[in-house]
Amino acid sequence: MSEIITSTSNPKIKFVRKLHDRKFRDLNNVFYIEGVRIVGEAFSSKWKITDLLYSSELLKNDFSRELVNSIRKQNVNLIEIDKDVFKSISIKDGPQGLAAIVEKQSFSISDILAGGVWVALDRIQDPGNLGTVLRTVDAVGAKGIVLINHCVDPFDISAVRSSMGALFSLKIIHITSKEFIDYVLKNQILVIGSSDSGNIDFRLASYPPNMILLMGSEREGLSEELFSVCTSIVRIPMAGKSDSLNLAVATGICLYEIYNQNNPIK
Amino acid sequence: MSEIITSTSNPKIKFVRKLHDRKFRDLNNVFYIEGVRIVGEAFSSKWKITDLLYSSELLKNDFSRELVNSIRKQNVNLIEIDKDVFKSISIKDGPQGLAAIVEKQSFSISDILAGGVWVALDRIQDPGNLGTVLRTVDAVGAKGIVLINHCVDPFDISAVRSSMGALFSLKIIHITSKEFIDYVLKNQILVIGSSDSGNIDFRLASYPPNMILLMGSEREGLSEELFSVCTSIVRIPMAGKSDSLNLAVATGICLYEIYNQNNPIK
Repeated sequence: MSEIITSTSNPKIKFVRKLHDRKFRDLNNVFYIEGVRIVGEAFSSKWKITDLLYSSELLKNDFSRELVNSIRKQNVNLIEIDKDVFKSISIKDGPQGLAAIVEKQSFSISDILAGGVWVALDRIQDPGNLGTVLRTVDAVGAKGIVLINHCVDPFDISAVRSSMGALFSLKIIHITSKEFIDYVLKNQILVIGSSDSGNIDFRLASYPPNMILLMGSEREGLSEELFSVCTSIVRIPMAGKSDSLNLAVATGICLYEIYNQNNPIK
Repeated sequence: MSEIITSTSNPKIKFVRKLHDRKFRDLNNVFYIEGVRIVGEAFSSKWKITDLLYSSELLKNDFSRELVNSIRKQNVNLIEIDKDVFKSISIKDGPQGLAAIVEKQSFSISDILAGGVWVALDRIQDPGNLGTVLRTVDAVGAKGIVLINHCVDPFDISAVRSSMGALFSLKIIHITSKEFIDYVLKNQILVIGSSDSGNIDFRLASYPPNMILLMGSEREGLSEELFSVCTSIVRIPMAGKSDSLNLAVATGICLYEIYNQNNPIK
């Protein structure tokens, strides 16, 4: 074991702090995660952990300590940090004493051809919404998400946290709207859009097991060019004053309808 | 017209800033809202606006200016603020130049007896989740929410913002778990809980038009004492690694199933 980091100006601590910045993450191709559950998910999903950061004093239970021991056996920098320094980099209210730097992974649009349900998001801006969508996509056993045009970074600290680790079991694809449109048309992939101006109640549409659910942006909804690739556009009924739902809620409602149709109760 | 506030140290500006603090809101029985849509909702829903704050330079369209003129006719302090001072108190990325201080309203548990669908939330902690639940409760035409035990403040700035103004058309009740349990038992109000340890798939339960959907806290789920008042506990199926959904998403999925059963497609 090497020594313990006790200074907040240690280069590794400074590096971690810079990982809040998207450009710095992109430059280094890594991101920061924190918490026993999320670090455990990254490890069990075989994402490449470059640095494991922990504070012995904060690790509360045997599970945490065993996780550190399991990860230690891999080719990973094991970095012990003083409790107060750990708290200074923590993004949690009650730090659990475990964090990691993880290599980003990227996937190709061709992964969609393997089938299953996918969610495509156009210009999603809110990291909490993106993380929450990831969590729901995993919950229904869907395969991944397609981020169209300029979206918030799925490796954003808030997005990773909201995903509760679901990020590590999903495929995330970045693509422009033009590439998306060309690809789905060429490969005849079924796209069902969701919009408050859709013409079919979401309960009436038929959802096959291989499809993309396409959601518009928080502010502007589905763009005209993306409308054009949808086989159908579903609408979630609104009975109150609100004319729209939160994006993550709307995605969840559609995903569970898709799930329900493909997994009838026995 | 009186003069324009040009200093960030003006007492009214300082007052607005203090409204970020729950204790200060409670003490003064008012809260801060911002944006044309939310201020418009407060006004049309007849909540008491004590102060209307605006910046002429930032008001972008006739709709905003007409709203200011309509509200001006009520008994309200009309306060013009310099553009830069407005930006200093703004909670939005692109301030629309319209904000207000609004009197809080409170409702009584007896409002539940009027019927309809209600959502009860136990110890909800995240203001974004609470606002998002409010938005969905309004979207399905439900009546309001019951906040059990110590919950995040529905008049929290982030909660109001996430609610998109739905807050103003709903009834919000604060109550302890003991009061809640006593009240629903005494009045024979049907309570259906949602929990990952529920024994009925949420698609199989029957939801009557008058009921309370009870959701547990983000961290701990439904408490044992609350379990005891539920006629049934539904479970949302999980097909991935995640063992739970975001609270606002889970509430939305259950609420739309309740809506669907009570509003069959003709």
